[in-house]
Amino acid sequence: MKIVTLMGYVAGLFSSVGFMPQMIKGFVTKKVDDVALWQPILLTIGTTLWLIYGLMIMDMPIILANILSIICNFLVVIQKFMYKGRG
Amino acid sequence: MKIVTLMGYVAGLFSSVGFMPQMIKGFVTKKVDDVALWQPILLTIGTTLWLIYGLMIMDMPIILANILSIICNFLVVIQKFMYKGRG
Repeated sequence: MKIVTLMGYVAGLFSSVGFMPQMIKGFVTKKVDDVALWQPILLTIGTTLWLIYGLMIMDMPIILANILSIICNFLVVIQKFMYKGRG
Repeated sequence: MKIVTLMGYVAGLFSSVGFMPQMIKGFVTKKVDDVALWQPILLTIGTTLWLIYGLMIMDMPIILANILSIICNFLVVIQKFMYKGRG
């Protein structure tokens, strides 16, 4: 594997795993009042577009990284409505 | 501009602007207790690595998108320490 591809996978690992803590914390505490609603909404759209971009240029690090990101951000959007006003 | 490059810029616009709401909300409310600390830490690292990846493959959408993302996520990390226990 080329260094550049490896770099892409490491970057992708951090930026996709990086969307997990908020999703996990939300399900554990059921408190999401301090979380900005527009953040996971815009990021769900953004990571979906990155996934499409990755498919267009057939770049595997971009494709794989964004699949997990989409799931995590979408779940945080759901939490914002599920746990509304519980904070 | 090729469609694929345009797609990359639109994706980059959403995913970089998408990191702004939490940073703005944090400075306005000064309440960040529900925000997971590890999220902005991992994403600051992740987006920095994506910036390096973008520079390695000289992909402008990836480079530009990640500069704003790094700033926003880093500021959320700072907020987590500045506003600790205020919630």
